[in-house]
Amino acid sequence: MRLIDVEAERLGTGDAGLKAPAGPDLSDRFRRVRSTTLALTASLSAEDQVVQSMPDASPAKWHLAHTTWFWETFVLAPAGVAAFDPAYAFLFNSYYEALGARHPRPQRGLLTRPDLDGVHRYRAYVDDHIQSLLDRRALDKATRDLVALGLAHEEQHQELLLTDILHLFAQNPLKPAYRPCPPTPAIALQDESTASTADIDFPGGLVEIGAEAADGPSAFAFDNEGPRHKVYLAPFRLADRLVTNAEWLAFMDDGGYARPELWLADGWACARAERWSAPLYWDKADGAWLGFGLEGAGPLELAAPVCHVSFYEADAFARWCGRRLPTEVEWEHAASQASTTGNFRDSAALRPRPLTRQPGAAASRGPHQMFGDVWEWTASPYAPYPGFRPAPGAVGEYNGKFMINQMVLRGGSCVTPKDHIRASYRNFFQPHQRWQFTGVRLAADVR
Amino acid sequence: MRLIDVEAERLGTGDAGLKAPAGPDLSDRFRRVRSTTLALTASLSAEDQVVQSMPDASPAKWHLAHTTWFWETFVLAPAGVAAFDPAYAFLFNSYYEALGARHPRPQRGLLTRPDLDGVHRYRAYVDDHIQSLLDRRALDKATRDLVALGLAHEEQHQELLLTDILHLFAQNPLKPAYRPCPPTPAIALQDESTASTADIDFPGGLVEIGAEAADGPSAFAFDNEGPRHKVYLAPFRLADRLVTNAEWLAFMDDGGYARPELWLADGWACARAERWSAPLYWDKADGAWLGFGLEGAGPLELAAPVCHVSFYEADAFARWCGRRLPTEVEWEHAASQASTTGNFRDSAALRPRPLTRQPGAAASRGPHQMFGDVWEWTASPYAPYPGFRPAPGAVGEYNGKFMINQMVLRGGSCVTPKDHIRASYRNFFQPHQRWQFTGVRLAADVR
Amino acid sequence: MRLIDVEAERLGTGDAGLKAPAGPDLSDRFRRVRSTTLALTASLSAEDQVVQSMPDASPAKWHLAHTTWFWETFVLAPAGVAAFDPAYAFLFNSYYEALGARHPRPQRGLLTRPDLDGVHRYRAYVDDHIQSLLDRRALDKATRDLVALGLAHEEQHQELLLTDILHLFAQNPLKPAYRPCPPTPAIALQDESTASTADIDFPGGLVEIGAEAADGPSAFAFDNEGPRHKVYLAPFRLADRLVTNAEWLAFMDDGGYARPELWLADGWACARAERWSAPLYWDKADGAWLGFGLEGAGPLELAAPVCHVSFYEADAFARWCGRRLPTEVEWEHAASQASTTGNFRDSAALRPRPLTRQPGAAASRGPHQMFGDVWEWTASPYAPYPGFRPAPGAVGEYNGKFMINQMVLRGGSCVTPKDHIRASYRNFFQPHQRWQFTGVRLAADVR
Amino acid sequence: MRLIDVEAERLGTGDAGLKAPAGPDLSDRFRRVRSTTLALTASLSAEDQVVQSMPDASPAKWHLAHTTWFWETFVLAPAGVAAFDPAYAFLFNSYYEALGARHPRPQRGLLTRPDLDGVHRYRAYVDDHIQSLLDRRALDKATRDLVALGLAHEEQHQELLLTDILHLFAQNPLKPAYRPCPPTPAIALQDESTASTADIDFPGGLVEIGAEAADGPSAFAFDNEGPRHKVYLAPFRLADRLVTNAEWLAFMDDGGYARPELWLADGWACARAERWSAPLYWDKADGAWLGFGLEGAGPLELAAPVCHVSFYEADAFARWCGRRLPTEVEWEHAASQASTTGNFRDSAALRPRPLTRQPGAAASRGPHQMFGDVWEWTASPYAPYPGFRPAPGAVGEYNGKFMINQMVLRGGSCVTPKDHIRASYRNFFQPHQRWQFTGVRLAADVR
Repeated sequence: MRLIDVEAERLGTGDAGLKAPAGPDLSDRFRRVRSTTLALTASLSAEDQVVQSMPDASPAKWHLAHTTWFWETFVLAPAGVAAFDPAYAFLFNSYYEALGARHPRPQRGLLTRPDLDGVHRYRAYVDDHIQSLLDRRALDKATRDLVALGLAHEEQHQELLLTDILHLFAQNPLKPAYRPCPPTPAIALQDESTASTADIDFPGGLVEIGAEAADGPSAFAFDNEGPRHKVYLAPFRLADRLVTNAEWLAFMDDGGYARPELWLADGWACARAERWSAPLYWDKADGAWLGFGLEGAGPLELAAPVCHVSFYEADAFARWCGRRLPTEVEWEHAASQASTTGNFRDSAALRPRPLTRQPGAAASRGPHQMFGDVWEWTASPYAPYPGFRPAPGAVGEYNGKFMINQMVLRGGSCVTPKDHIRASYRNFFQPHQRWQFTGVRLAADVR
Repeated sequence: MRLIDVEAERLGTGDAGLKAPAGPDLSDRFRRVRSTTLALTASLSAEDQVVQSMPDASPAKWHLAHTTWFWETFVLAPAGVAAFDPAYAFLFNSYYEALGARHPRPQRGLLTRPDLDGVHRYRAYVDDHIQSLLDRRALDKATRDLVALGLAHEEQHQELLLTDILHLFAQNPLKPAYRPCPPTPAIALQDESTASTADIDFPGGLVEIGAEAADGPSAFAFDNEGPRHKVYLAPFRLADRLVTNAEWLAFMDDGGYARPELWLADGWACARAERWSAPLYWDKADGAWLGFGLEGAGPLELAAPVCHVSFYEADAFARWCGRRLPTEVEWEHAASQASTTGNFRDSAALRPRPLTRQPGAAASRGPHQMFGDVWEWTASPYAPYPGFRPAPGAVGEYNGKFMINQMVLRGGSCVTPKDHIRASYRNFFQPHQRWQFTGVRLAADVR
Repeated sequence: MRLIDVEAERLGTGDAGLKAPAGPDLSDRFRRVRSTTLALTASLSAEDQVVQSMPDASPAKWHLAHTTWFWETFVLAPAGVAAFDPAYAFLFNSYYEALGARHPRPQRGLLTRPDLDGVHRYRAYVDDHIQSLLDRRALDKATRDLVALGLAHEEQHQELLLTDILHLFAQNPLKPAYRPCPPTPAIALQDESTASTADIDFPGGLVEIGAEAADGPSAFAFDNEGPRHKVYLAPFRLADRLVTNAEWLAFMDDGGYARPELWLADGWACARAERWSAPLYWDKADGAWLGFGLEGAGPLELAAPVCHVSFYEADAFARWCGRRLPTEVEWEHAASQASTTGNFRDSAALRPRPLTRQPGAAASRGPHQMFGDVWEWTASPYAPYPGFRPAPGAVGEYNGKFMINQMVLRGGSCVTPKDHIRASYRNFFQPHQRWQFTGVRLAADVR
Repeated sequence: MRLIDVEAERLGTGDAGLKAPAGPDLSDRFRRVRSTTLALTASLSAEDQVVQSMPDASPAKWHLAHTTWFWETFVLAPAGVAAFDPAYAFLFNSYYEALGARHPRPQRGLLTRPDLDGVHRYRAYVDDHIQSLLDRRALDKATRDLVALGLAHEEQHQELLLTDILHLFAQNPLKPAYRPCPPTPAIALQDESTASTADIDFPGGLVEIGAEAADGPSAFAFDNEGPRHKVYLAPFRLADRLVTNAEWLAFMDDGGYARPELWLADGWACARAERWSAPLYWDKADGAWLGFGLEGAGPLELAAPVCHVSFYEADAFARWCGRRLPTEVEWEHAASQASTTGNFRDSAALRPRPLTRQPGAAASRGPHQMFGDVWEWTASPYAPYPGFRPAPGAVGEYNGKFMINQMVLRGGSCVTPKDHIRASYRNFFQPHQRWQFTGVRLAADVR
């Protein structure tokens, strides 16, 4: 369908070529990733892009500027390129202590100046200089690694930009849509073929997880994904699909949000304090639950994966089922046997979609929906792998200093760029956070 | 100077005609007040107008929309005119409980939709309908009173809009200026002719203050200004001019912000908690104090009235001088003998200005700077006058329900429209608030 | 009844002699006031006396020690008497900045040492030395004034001690009673003779209020009660008795706590945030309201004055009645024509009591219950009188520095010592505070 | 030395017999554990025992009552013994949701009633009934398990009682001592023999940790210690002793508290917000650091293990050393090869002590100070072991529901009863908490 094609183009499906060899194509890949970031803001007004809806979120304009600052600081400055505006080092540093003082995070939404045009000029200036650098071809390995990191960083902010815009729009009683016209046909609310689930058993044993030492952009991995290491795994069982909205409604109907015995102590305290009674963005109108997503408000799609739940809720739901969440080791071990396909941003759906199975097709083979749709909460606190060393210099602050009070999520979501994800990818959020596209897959011990 | 003329036009000096007879000119006055509001936002981007810098402040766009909602709700709706958009009743109600639920004040800055163009259309729609109504001429007294209230309300928000924009810009490390080019020549930092001050003694006795019952728009007054009533006044003494920045620096140099004996207990606690060491918007750079105003940052003008101080600071300063703040009765008694002239928004300076006296001119006659420049903190808590009755209906919430925990300020400021102010006008803010254009005049007992 | 007599003795009725001439009897009065403080704690365990139930309240032991510190600091130290323990200057200073650093108020309840015996020894040490000083007889006026202030200060803390103990016991699910056996017979819940109320009209005019300059302990007044000054009063109307529990229930039944139009904006925000739905200490059990007081929990006495309501509630109640609260000038003008009699601590009831009228007696003469029972909220913010000067030195911090953000209360309560009160007495609390014995008398304009 | 003997007796060294066979001696062990709890409060006044110094801590009296409630609820109630006072179920339940509503934790210090005598009577009542039950001998396994759990629970509260009293006394400017006379001779501040440290290398591989399924009280373990399971361990290195105060001072002197690059992001934010510049209870006086412990204030013992540091500080210290904290698996693997001896509460020192080595003795054999002195922070977030199942019923809330946002500590401290600890024991606190006796052992990767 043409509309999808157009959408897909705008949302970066064109990135599909990025698995090509790195060296010569780096410039091309840079151009495409950077233009995709801008394309994601095309439907937003300058007003939409300046506002910060909560301290956890950032304005779209700030994402545009901060990613640019990253290129300028880590690639251009060492190469001797003059700063576009020396004041931006203060304004658009996110959290790098090694790079000096910075604008406080909760005040990112107060920066009406530079205006959006100014930030666009900033991007053009930096893009031109990076492009020149890349076109010279003879990049050393360290610079190539930084470019790979810059691309991955930019992609993370593309995802956050969508996540944060959704949060902003959700605060507005007018409930605006990021993309008003859904490009995909409506789906039957209850698809019989998706109702059943099955468990897959894994024998465990001594396994290996984690990323190998990186070698070139096609094999890029963050420092927190390594080193690759051995882990002993007890036998375990994994659900072959994600938990659905229909299943979540059953949890709610059974008093899930009112039964302390299902919850961790901190989770219960949080749920009480925040008066949670449903996933974030669910709204009850005239007795029916509505969802809210990048396409605006609409009836809840019952067969779609539940989304925007916190770790606390995911954990309580699993306990209600007599199950548990998988550990990140279990998840990665299972995922490394599957292909990295799924409902990513590139599909242009921009929302989790029901698992559809071909009628009459063969029985389930391996777990589905491991990649895309929703980030899957794991039972694993975010901690360094054995032998972990942060990257040297200021980029060493990228991951390591957050290894406390967070839980690992795996698999990417419907707003993650396809080429950004891999089996070893470790995302992390605090257990109370819900504005990410986060969902649940169940696991269990094998006895 | 031409530049001043242009500025003055844009900022509403053209309003000078509004003292003409009310009836036939109401439509003309409405047009001018409404267009002035828009003119005040002409130099601001859409981004500048959507952001809320703190819960006490509102976005410029919100001011544009809320004033429009006021007209629609209190004048058009009773006349049977259809709402521009029914959702706006929720979005743009400020605090009227009688009119139902409303968008929470701290979230006014999250409304990126309707966008600025949408709000401009809203204004045009409402302006057209009000204009039609006014052009019919045969308005009853109740409607004329509501129109007069609507105009006064709009003027209050014009002033708040400038106050709030200054606060927003002050949070930005780039320190943008609302009006980059100062239209007035630079003034010598220390003008000998302004250094001296004098006291004026008032004999006191049984006096009358407060507004008479209103009769027509030329005599408009808020309900909180009446009824006119008798007060017994002991003899008192009033400074003939405002406290200056130079005098405030002397207070600071004498440890004014570090000596608890000068402060009210709550004031001291607040000054400690907020780490106050100078008026709001003062900034020390390379050992010198800079001010910040609607024209941006610049060296402190020593002879200008101190501005952006809280009641707590004003009270401590007065105690340091061995003086006190005047009561609102004292102030009004003195002010009612002076003409309502001064440095208002209409002068286009948009900042407090030094008092200049002609060399060789006759000695001081009566207090100066009573109107304009800065709102003057009084020693009077904001309370109802004897016999006070709020206006009936929802507009009765305009003033009365705030008569607690606030202090009265008098005289208007450099961002107050000239025709908005009068001797009986009662403004009110909480004793810790500093983002208004607030300053100090000293008083004393006569023994 | 004997039981009452014993109680009355313990609670200080013996103080009745203190109106005798001051000079020679000062020593006797000192002895009695000090021993009364101790007597008030006789029924309390050491545990009861060490705990602080909220930052606004203080432990009983702290009251015992702080009052002793006051005597030591302001009377003994200037006379050259050595400190009992130098560390106590830090521990038991309440808020006197001029006297140096002090233990933070919210941590008063952490002082398990010195233990209660130690504080009793401290009291004995200071009492002995003060007594020696007083017995020498030839006190100068300044010292006599300080002794008078010390006695008034001690009596204030006697009252606070009872108020704070009630608050502590109210937090305990066991609902302990300060005095388990009520000494007075039960009263019919609804006494016909108390049901009616009447207004008394006052013509107003130029009146005088405030205390004359003090001259000797018999005429003691705090600095905030003076100077005596003229005020012009419009005609007004005052209810001849206090608002009762029965009347408050009618307010509640009429949705008083759920109707924003009845409340000041700050009051409404406070009532929502604190989830107020009844006066403090009221508790609903099996559909009936119970009260809680120094005699423990019990059925609400309908004809008794309502107690433990905030200014916000009092103000909302008055608006519900179409009335208002009296100003402190109105109150004092009316009270100065009445005798200072009422239900004080000396009556040993320790709770507000219904107004009883003799059947067949003559009609109401003047307002009743002006003194005792409950402190009456006035409409007056606490501000300095014209010409007010704080006392010189550290005692000047006693009153003046609190003249902001508080409302004046008048008339004393059922836990106020009889000899402590007078028509000019100004008490003050913040408008949200409810743990004092505070109630309501209605007033109105005369038109 | 006699003094030590007396102390040791009072503090429970008499417990040494508890490794005797369980069945017949259970009654004897019960008697001794219960009487030890009381003995620990013998030097405290009733006032000391009622106050709560912060929400994380509990009053000593509450510990006395809550442990009693535990026995009553889990052992006596199922056996049909009548409750001592039905109200106590509400007052002294700590956090068991399955057992209904409870008194809010932050208000435990408001319970001046029941008074201390009342709680002593409560203990006596419950002790008598438990003793009768135990004397009957024929206990089923479930009851014997509950008794073992009750004893372990009581011992945990013995430790908390000392920890909490230390915190309370530390808030008092008088700095009272729990035990005024130190029973041990002063130690040279810098003992040469303790200055050196050494690393011990462990080859790693597939190891087993965790407790076997419990079978009788002598083998008691909490549910969170099991099940025993295989873990693959990379080779690692462990310091052979704890980090000392002298080493911590070097960290401080090197700007450890002012260098963000050493800290986790959350740790840095916490250290800034709390203004940490030294371990809890350290105090600088006249340029020298003083410590504060159960024996009161005194000069810092440089060779003693550092104590009262948070996980955040421990982690930053390790990074400053170029090391890391051990994981709990590494720690347990190493500890399971050592004997469970050390400086426990039974030694009556009640403070961490320097490691002393015999002059001329053979070189270090295995890690020292693994048990006792201080709880050792590990790098492991507190999470369930593979196959973990909480105990059924309300006691299942004992451990499992806290498995989030906490870090594991190992080894016990100088206030832990000797018989309470074992290699598999998992303690857990939040990473910012410092009032426990917590310290640091370094680890490193082997490359």
